[in-house]
Amino acid sequence: MKPYHLYHSPGACSLAPHIVLEELGVAYEPIRVLVNEGENRKPEYLAVNPRGRVPALVIDDEHGQRILTEALAIMVYLTRRHPQPSLLPTEPEGHARALEWMSWLASIMHQGGVRTVFRPERFTTDPAGAPAIAEQGRINLRPGYDDIEARLSGRTWALGDAFSAIDAYLLVFYRWGNRCGLRMRETCPEYSRVMDAVRARPAVQRVVAREGIHFE
Amino acid sequence: MKPYHLYHSPGACSLAPHIVLEELGVAYEPIRVLVNEGENRKPEYLAVNPRGRVPALVIDDEHGQRILTEALAIMVYLTRRHPQPSLLPTEPEGHARALEWMSWLASIMHQGGVRTVFRPERFTTDPAGAPAIAEQGRINLRPGYDDIEARLSGRTWALGDAFSAIDAYLLVFYRWGNRCGLRMRETCPEYSRVMDAVRARPAVQRVVAREGIHFE
Repeated sequence: MKPYHLYHSPGACSLAPHIVLEELGVAYEPIRVLVNEGENRKPEYLAVNPRGRVPALVIDDEHGQRILTEALAIMVYLTRRHPQPSLLPTEPEGHARALEWMSWLASIMHQGGVRTVFRPERFTTDPAGAPAIAEQGRINLRPGYDDIEARLSGRTWALGDAFSAIDAYLLVFYRWGNRCGLRMRETCPEYSRVMDAVRARPAVQRVVAREGIHFE
Repeated sequence: MKPYHLYHSPGACSLAPHIVLEELGVAYEPIRVLVNEGENRKPEYLAVNPRGRVPALVIDDEHGQRILTEALAIMVYLTRRHPQPSLLPTEPEGHARALEWMSWLASIMHQGGVRTVFRPERFTTDPAGAPAIAEQGRINLRPGYDDIEARLSGRTWALGDAFSAIDAYLLVFYRWGNRCGLRMRETCPEYSRVMDAVRARPAVQRVVAREGIHFE
């Protein structure tokens, strides 16, 4: 059995740890869970991850099998276990900057933003109120994407000179921005430039092909 | 000038890094920003943190002044800079478990949960739709609090035998659970037991008194 199994759904935030595993070159088994078809809520998957979310990493070694959830935690864990190639800074302040990026993306941009556009019906007891939630979600996301655009301005990669797990995570939100109707290439040229470089990486291309996802 | 300035709002998630600073015993200056009165959106604060959120940690040392945001990133940074007393595990898997807790609390429970109950009007373009959002928020939060209750069952502290930054972070959500009408003491006896132990700590009592917050 391979040391890692990654449960992922095409284009979900699991894309980021999927890219990290591929970039690290470690042996792992990707297992597809189709969230859009509700597979994450079926008993088979809830037996793996009772929270019913992706990503979930199964770690299998001499200490037995354990499951680790949350994209941020999985990416930090993998980059600490496999320090080369270096995909996250390790010194305290650089590492904290990486965590700041990831925490903000996971909380403000994902759960408080993109999810309200993709799944507005999950945020109200009144089904008729869903369109107004999605509309506000798109409004709320705009300053977030403008913030990313400003932070990437003039930079080769999110954290500076080296590709990192943050660039992989940003690719998820870039695709989502387009799917939310926010026209990334037009409104975020710097973000688009960096993401073009991410997508040109061989490891990223392999993962994108495996997940079968597309970019605008 | 003290090496750290923490911008916080009473009872906000900044309570957790506030407790961490006090438990570590380092020199810091707490600076109050009243979010409920909109002080976080005033120019003075936006000059400190353009994202207009608390917490924000100003780090002031021989390398100059920098600002670090996101409760998770601030807590990890401080515990790495000041390893004693140990407030987070450092070995990769224990550390990843701590990040899993914090990432889930920051994203699913805070931005995707509690915030929809406290600020439903921020999630819709239709003001009349706000009550149905808050109502759904309380429904969505219940399994999250049940999850916390199950994870704390039979444990002294969230991560096992030692108090950690996770317990400080959980105190924020405990108080919020009550404020969301979820009756913590009645529905979460194990969570209540652990939080009673957190609140009995001298450092926590000093911070709670300084913030002027109350618990049910």
